[in-house]
Amino acid sequence: MNGAETLVRTLLASDVRVCFANPGTSEMHFVAALDRHPELRCILCLFEGGVSGAADGYFRMTGQIAATLLHLAPGFGNAFANLHNARKAQSGVLNVMGDHADYHLRFEAPLKGDTVGISQAVSHWTRVCAEPGRVAGDAADAIQAARAKNGQIATLILPANMAWDPADGQAVAPPPPPLRRPSLDEVAAAARALRQPGAILLVDGPVLWSDLGLLAKRLTKAAGARLMHPFFAARFRRGAGAVQIERMAYRIEDNLTLMQGAPALVLCGTTRPAGFFAYPGRPSTPDDPDTRLIDLCSRDMDIAWTLQTLAEEIGEADLGPEDFGTLSLPAPPDGPVTLEKLGRSVAALMPEDAIIVDEGITASGHLAPALKQARGHDVLTITGGSIGFGLPNAVGAAVACPDRKVVVLEGDGSGMYTLQSLWTMAREGLDVTTVIFANRGYQILREELAAMGVNEVGRNASQMFDVEGPRLDWVALAKGHGVQAVRVEDMAGFNAAFAEAMEQRGPRLIEVLC
Amino acid sequence: MNGAETLVRTLLASDVRVCFANPGTSEMHFVAALDRHPELRCILCLFEGGVSGAADGYFRMTGQIAATLLHLAPGFGNAFANLHNARKAQSGVLNVMGDHADYHLRFEAPLKGDTVGISQAVSHWTRVCAEPGRVAGDAADAIQAARAKNGQIATLILPANMAWDPADGQAVAPPPPPLRRPSLDEVAAAARALRQPGAILLVDGPVLWSDLGLLAKRLTKAAGARLMHPFFAARFRRGAGAVQIERMAYRIEDNLTLMQGAPALVLCGTTRPAGFFAYPGRPSTPDDPDTRLIDLCSRDMDIAWTLQTLAEEIGEADLGPEDFGTLSLPAPPDGPVTLEKLGRSVAALMPEDAIIVDEGITASGHLAPALKQARGHDVLTITGGSIGFGLPNAVGAAVACPDRKVVVLEGDGSGMYTLQSLWTMAREGLDVTTVIFANRGYQILREELAAMGVNEVGRNASQMFDVEGPRLDWVALAKGHGVQAVRVEDMAGFNAAFAEAMEQRGPRLIEVLC
Repeated sequence: MNGAETLVRTLLASDVRVCFANPGTSEMHFVAALDRHPELRCILCLFEGGVSGAADGYFRMTGQIAATLLHLAPGFGNAFANLHNARKAQSGVLNVMGDHADYHLRFEAPLKGDTVGISQAVSHWTRVCAEPGRVAGDAADAIQAARAKNGQIATLILPANMAWDPADGQAVAPPPPPLRRPSLDEVAAAARALRQPGAILLVDGPVLWSDLGLLAKRLTKAAGARLMHPFFAARFRRGAGAVQIERMAYRIEDNLTLMQGAPALVLCGTTRPAGFFAYPGRPSTPDDPDTRLIDLCSRDMDIAWTLQTLAEEIGEADLGPEDFGTLSLPAPPDGPVTLEKLGRSVAALMPEDAIIVDEGITASGHLAPALKQARGHDVLTITGGSIGFGLPNAVGAAVACPDRKVVVLEGDGSGMYTLQSLWTMAREGLDVTTVIFANRGYQILREELAAMGVNEVGRNASQMFDVEGPRLDWVALAKGHGVQAVRVEDMAGFNAAFAEAMEQRGPRLIEVLC
Repeated sequence: MNGAETLVRTLLASDVRVCFANPGTSEMHFVAALDRHPELRCILCLFEGGVSGAADGYFRMTGQIAATLLHLAPGFGNAFANLHNARKAQSGVLNVMGDHADYHLRFEAPLKGDTVGISQAVSHWTRVCAEPGRVAGDAADAIQAARAKNGQIATLILPANMAWDPADGQAVAPPPPPLRRPSLDEVAAAARALRQPGAILLVDGPVLWSDLGLLAKRLTKAAGARLMHPFFAARFRRGAGAVQIERMAYRIEDNLTLMQGAPALVLCGTTRPAGFFAYPGRPSTPDDPDTRLIDLCSRDMDIAWTLQTLAEEIGEADLGPEDFGTLSLPAPPDGPVTLEKLGRSVAALMPEDAIIVDEGITASGHLAPALKQARGHDVLTITGGSIGFGLPNAVGAAVACPDRKVVVLEGDGSGMYTLQSLWTMAREGLDVTTVIFANRGYQILREELAAMGVNEVGRNASQMFDVEGPRLDWVALAKGHGVQAVRVEDMAGFNAAFAEAMEQRGPRLIEVLC
């Protein structure tokens, strides 16, 4: 038995069941060990951004960590952007990054790089295995770290000789340490603040999709407070039956209006909201300067206990139909494509309990009103703002929930960052329908340039915003990855293609000219 | 005028003429400033790995730095792998990474990340602009740093408010500081060592493609020494007329044989060779333990002065025809495809002075013998071992040398990492012909697993090595990016497609089943 074998045994003994992988030579002994344990499911992604994004999506839908298998420094670099998104989603991810044999590191081999430095730039926890006999224990610690504080990025760096040298045994990850809680006095103060008319309870994390949402709704209703959640959330429930939690807006101006005059803003499972970017002459934060900010319970604390204790202070009101989303499904519209119509069509045709992975960037806001009245579904958003999250997260969500339909709403600019995930969808037969909004460019940048106060777009700028000349052909790109695809130019075409995709299983892509 | 404008003026005043870009919101004022200066050529890449790889290829072919424009932390993360390759190539690259306005960084905006940490994990030089009035000076320092020591990775982090706040003027980058030189005593000792029969001078850098190669050849011939270069090199000359410099092998065993019994190994413009990886029971370095290692001049020192001084010590022999590559162009073979035949066809059909970007991984070794007898050409290799270098480097090389044909030899596994560069080739009309060796998997990993002593490949391993089920369709992938493509299954098909590509200008892709 060798170190790699003890690592795989430790993963299995600690209930890690899935490994998203893009290995290289330094990971070969780990790969060989995985071969002896087919009960650990290995899923190949053709680019490391697909690996980390899939692990993120898997955690968002299961609350369970997946392992990633990444090649030394630059391989981890490719995974960085979606680890950033995972970190901002508070997703637990266990990275296993290979490295050269430790004695080889004093030479200048081509792939030698700063494995610790790049890991620490995004991970909460980083450790280099230093003895083959300690690989199992280090892995158990890494798993514990990934599960701690409601989910962290934990990276175990495994030099090749730690994997291939003899070692014995296995370890089981200890349970994560207890979550930190606010004091009873802090909860009581928050309860008093929430009883003021117009006070806001801002929630995030599992409150947005689990029964904790019911609790939060009942207690805010009893207090007469508003219940809200940040615009970007790892996962939230929407549509018929979803507890009504007001979603903040994207633009800082809109949020300033939303939050104006609130006597108190109580944070539970989240942090103080801030603008996606700063803009000249506008504030960084949307809360009213006269609002009292109460940082009750951060995302890495005991959210469930805090809400329960808050409810004991405040009481719980009964909920009525007005507290839940209602179903309203007009027939899919026809005629020329508009984003609003696409929202109505998706709403009408999407099955119960679908998962929407939303990387539509500028487009999604137009679809949202109709989707709020669709059948109940979960929504995953781009928590860290780093584009290229959508297709990989959909892979992870589909692996996590094989019986649910996954729908990706994807911009053509953002989709290009990690399009290789289409291949993994095809290989694994994942039930993912990708809708590409082909607006031929980075529409967000056109809007952001204007928000920055620049209104004329010259040649250099338009060269950097427009993905035209040549136009991307998403039908060909999907076909190249083995995914069936169609291009539609009007609503009738979209309705037919989307309805067919909803009725069948397996990956599909629909490119919508809009 | 604002900080961004002073930055662009400083770039231009310091002779930086090209910017490979993938901007985001935090870079909008820089984009607006670029708009006012069309004389700085902006080239959009649809993924940051394309940006950094293009800057690398541009430096390799011109010796001039290009600017990159990258979005804050995760955007830089996407560029990391090809910055790693550039660093190992000793390429100078000037990264401009945007960041949030500095006052915004105390809030938890989604895109906030460890910009300094990720930069420092790969850059030689990192600085955060702290005052709008100092942007120009900081940029000049960054340019100088990128040009120092024969080429470095320099990263200037530009908070958005440093770009948009008022500022005046421009700066000109000072010349890089003088290069460090070995002492005359050290040169004399190296000269004595090289006069021993069987001694080796190992060279890298411009020696492999400039007139310094002639000098190195003359002095080693005078000394009776061998002249060699590392297997992975940023750029080397090959084919007819190329100074004969023996290329080291990929495998450590082959290099052990090559270097066995050498009394001395003198390093000039390079570092001590090391195995690409360590393998159980095999040494990390190929030099004979009895060989005296003389670290005369590292890659960041004054290579030209060192060789000239060495030549003054040793003398220079006249070169004869045997010291240069000769032309031998058999007709392109037909019949079933083999890699050896592909080498002969490429050699026969490739024009004078082409640039081969070699990311064929396992395939390229089979093509090399024929290419050594082709028309003279330059070869760029994957110096840092991080796959996904080929297509982006080809973009940079083609921008650098618009009158030369660029040929990319690309594996199907490695090509998938940065396939978005095909789009930039199409948009810019770059004269690049990409040959994809479609062996349906990571052949290198199949071989490396065996090299690690593992001979049975089970389900999990084969799932991670084989890019089949579904097969990638490179013709469709190219078409999706706007590049004309064809698939060939025999040599007649390849010869026709490659000959046509050589006769015409603009991007082409040929997928070869092999």
